[in-house]
Amino acid sequence: MVRVEMLNVGRELLIGRTLNTNAHWAGKRLATMGTMLSQITTVDDNIEEISSSVKGCLRRSPDFLVIVGGLGPTPDDMTLQGVAVGIGRKMELNEEALAMIKEHYVKRGLGDMEITPARRKMAILPDGARPVRNEAGTAPGVRLEAGNTVVFSLPGVPTEMKSIFRKSVEPEVKERLGRLYRRYISFKLEGIMESALAPLIVAELKKHPGAYIKSHPRGVENGVSKIVLDIAVVGPLESEANRVAGEIATDMRKEIGAAGAKVTVAKGSDPRKKR
Amino acid sequence: MVRVEMLNVGRELLIGRTLNTNAHWAGKRLATMGTMLSQITTVDDNIEEISSSVKGCLRRSPDFLVIVGGLGPTPDDMTLQGVAVGIGRKMELNEEALAMIKEHYVKRGLGDMEITPARRKMAILPDGARPVRNEAGTAPGVRLEAGNTVVFSLPGVPTEMKSIFRKSVEPEVKERLGRLYRRYISFKLEGIMESALAPLIVAELKKHPGAYIKSHPRGVENGVSKIVLDIAVVGPLESEANRVAGEIATDMRKEIGAAGAKVTVAKGSDPRKKR
Repeated sequence: MVRVEMLNVGRELLIGRTLNTNAHWAGKRLATMGTMLSQITTVDDNIEEISSSVKGCLRRSPDFLVIVGGLGPTPDDMTLQGVAVGIGRKMELNEEALAMIKEHYVKRGLGDMEITPARRKMAILPDGARPVRNEAGTAPGVRLEAGNTVVFSLPGVPTEMKSIFRKSVEPEVKERLGRLYRRYISFKLEGIMESALAPLIVAELKKHPGAYIKSHPRGVENGVSKIVLDIAVVGPLESEANRVAGEIATDMRKEIGAAGAKVTVAKGSDPRKKR
Repeated sequence: MVRVEMLNVGRELLIGRTLNTNAHWAGKRLATMGTMLSQITTVDDNIEEISSSVKGCLRRSPDFLVIVGGLGPTPDDMTLQGVAVGIGRKMELNEEALAMIKEHYVKRGLGDMEITPARRKMAILPDGARPVRNEAGTAPGVRLEAGNTVVFSLPGVPTEMKSIFRKSVEPEVKERLGRLYRRYISFKLEGIMESALAPLIVAELKKHPGAYIKSHPRGVENGVSKIVLDIAVVGPLESEANRVAGEIATDMRKEIGAAGAKVTVAKGSDPRKKR
């Protein structure tokens, strides 16, 4: 298992201004690759909070720490200072980052624009970091290593975050993962309560301790209890992941049917699709 | 400032199965009340991860810790065990919680239903905790005190979470807050880059160090840079919060206008609305 943590920086996420779709998107991408986010932390734009969270994340020694938000030119963009304090590095002007920023302005036809302190700020990185090209915006991403952890720092604007994640984070995670297959099946259940389903899941997990079998209650409609049941199996052999997931699906369908409930394959579930 | 932390428990949030709308909703409710979430942490359904996160949260000694998810009857619902380990308490059957669960089944016309181990599980709480009525579902919420922190544990189903949050968490937070007013104003800017806006914000924050002034880049359309600018001021006097927010809004409009950009009041912003 490759451990990937995410640290989101930005008060807008703490006051309900912005929904954290970045963590949701990255979690899904990683799950599709056969791993997942092991933890998500969201903190305020504040050097102390950022640095202490960075320390906390690194203490758990994940393979990757992906920090999102706070790389821009405004005074509340202080993620890199927080990272530098958290891992005990100095901040210094990175010439490669400055060149990327200038290049971005040139591309937008603003090549003669003055490099003000606010713009220069985006090129000041922790010592030992390297900038990562941002094809969707101005502020470069940042990559550095701290202990056993590869730390990426990405902008919070979703288009920029996704672009750098796809091009720079995913290839490294994939390399670390080797090749893993994930088979995912989802059922809609009608007419069984979660408390009646619980022992059936316990029994099935005893047969397949490595599998993921989880119920999500979806409320009661006209006296009928509705539940979504997710099944996922991850492994290095595609045929084996398919076999185990198929076996669990068959067992659960049978048991839940015997309990008098209706079982249908949920939208988004595709037993035939390779992941 | 009243510090409120949220801890979300559930793998579905880590694999991009479920978007964390609970934290977003609660953050917004608290912001409207004049405070905010100071940190959000999301962890897997795993006793070790839950207990170590609970310890981590309590080390920061917030006034409130709101834990969401993992109270149901299934085997992966292990939040309360994690809390008990984290704060060093025993788990024990709570008769009041059991009565609430039975009452819920009676209400649904299932009064003669057997209290199986899975159903009884929802009434086993950490020692010293008291159940909190869940009017929208089966599993009761839980309230306990650990050091200086009031810990609430709520179900993850949004309707149940919101119902208990409104009826039990908010009144306690409000009491702790006293009376605070929040004035929020939001502008849409067209034709100014974030790097040009940055020094204007720095200057304004020097005049009003307690205010919240933050830019959210919204991309470039037809060569025109778009930004949302949020202004918020919180204080015990409504007239004072209004005055300061109004002053900042007037200053920013003037400065941004002088920089050649278009400024309009954003949807959702209501300078006249009391918060």
